[in-house]
Amino acid sequence: MATRDALHFSPSNSEQIDPYITQPNHSSHSKPFVTLTFATSLDSQLSLAPGVQTALSGPDSKAMTHYLRSKHDAILIGVGTAIADDPSLNCRIGGVGGYGGEGLEGQPRPVIIDPKCRWEFTEESKVMRLARERKGKAPWVITQTEMSEGKRRILESVGGKVLAVCSVPALPVTASSEWDDLLKALAREEIRSVMIEGGGRIINDLLGAKNFNLVDSVIVTIAPTWLGEGGVQVCPERRMENGRPLPVGRLTDVRWIPLGEDVVLCGRPKRWQ
Amino acid sequence: MATRDALHFSPSNSEQIDPYITQPNHSSHSKPFVTLTFATSLDSQLSLAPGVQTALSGPDSKAMTHYLRSKHDAILIGVGTAIADDPSLNCRIGGVGGYGGEGLEGQPRPVIIDPKCRWEFTEESKVMRLARERKGKAPWVITQTEMSEGKRRILESVGGKVLAVCSVPALPVTASSEWDDLLKALAREEIRSVMIEGGGRIINDLLGAKNFNLVDSVIVTIAPTWLGEGGVQVCPERRMENGRPLPVGRLTDVRWIPLGEDVVLCGRPKRWQ
Repeated sequence: MATRDALHFSPSNSEQIDPYITQPNHSSHSKPFVTLTFATSLDSQLSLAPGVQTALSGPDSKAMTHYLRSKHDAILIGVGTAIADDPSLNCRIGGVGGYGGEGLEGQPRPVIIDPKCRWEFTEESKVMRLARERKGKAPWVITQTEMSEGKRRILESVGGKVLAVCSVPALPVTASSEWDDLLKALAREEIRSVMIEGGGRIINDLLGAKNFNLVDSVIVTIAPTWLGEGGVQVCPERRMENGRPLPVGRLTDVRWIPLGEDVVLCGRPKRWQ
Repeated sequence: MATRDALHFSPSNSEQIDPYITQPNHSSHSKPFVTLTFATSLDSQLSLAPGVQTALSGPDSKAMTHYLRSKHDAILIGVGTAIADDPSLNCRIGGVGGYGGEGLEGQPRPVIIDPKCRWEFTEESKVMRLARERKGKAPWVITQTEMSEGKRRILESVGGKVLAVCSVPALPVTASSEWDDLLKALAREEIRSVMIEGGGRIINDLLGAKNFNLVDSVIVTIAPTWLGEGGVQVCPERRMENGRPLPVGRLTDVRWIPLGEDVVLCGRPKRWQ
């Protein structure tokens, strides 16, 4: 049965999070609503080492991630995460399409930023398989190079496509205009909300002083664990003024929601004056 | 009036924290009860740069720190923090000695680890001044070198003393036996509970796999801010097994307490088997 592995997120928890993922006054049609979301250890690490998947947060936090996915038109990740994790990028909340619901209702569009077409996906990559099985939408790959004929065929056979953007954020160094172009390209494809999930370089880039104003909402899960030196760390580039370091970013309108042994922090970027 | 700058910590908050700082079955007389406590940014940093005091947490968190101080026999810091911050190391909760209370009732003993007597305190150092004004206890300096005659005189004039321990944890590299010796020395001085407040090297050393079992309770305040690269980071030494990195430490019996815009995490070290 399709709903066997469905997840459930309690209404009492979703009520607390909903104000951060719906914005009544998000009237912009040129840029989707951007939610930045990730899970770290207490020492602000996403994983024990680059390319090593690390189970950090508990089952409730996992259900929350899937609930958030159901509330966004798209999920965006970087090519590093696509290569390291072979992620599913679908939504498994009971009642969405493929998990008890109609068609692909409530499934987000997976979007992978892959400037140089480094992601060597196959027909068996999870996101392709799930699209074929109608348990998730087919992915879009944002690139600025030509994709090989073979890969393009696999992608299009499940209903996915290549989105060519003239300047893709080429991490680790980006200009805000690149993120701006990318978000506008998504808006042109009728993506009104996007949940950006990782990996480390994308998160640090968006938390940085020059890009943070593109983010509408931040949802961070923190697990009560220290991973130790050498992991993939969330820590944005330093901000300096007159030769002195200043805090890079702060959240406002903050809510901390204990969830199992973890905590979920919801907030909105505070605009510096 | 002595109570003008007194702080207040609400009973509803203290009720939540009390279970983590009193341990009915802490029967050991050879080692004090050890609470490790500190405040970080979301990117796990204590300050923007070494030696730069950084206001991270809000007024409620500050009151909590002083409340915690009132519940411990001693506060312990490293020499780096003593030099950088010229800290007060007293307790300003209304009702304790010096802040409306009798004598020095409820004031913790400041203890500074200073293996090589690097701390160049004077009569005007805050901790000396407060001791003279009867608003805090006089400090003890733990060292393994001879302290200069002049400094010793200042220290003893306010009622402080030198505690010679044969092997003081000489950061950044310590053996657990060194912490063990130090804690035993405090127990011999009738210190039954100690709150270890920092700085970065001491915290990372105690969170490390070889020392974490000396800690009874951990209380971390997290502020919704990213400081950015280059700050003083809480991130313990990596733990490896068969060439693979493993998480270093985890808390159990966890409670997350929102406090103003910050969150306070209370927990106990999980023992690895």
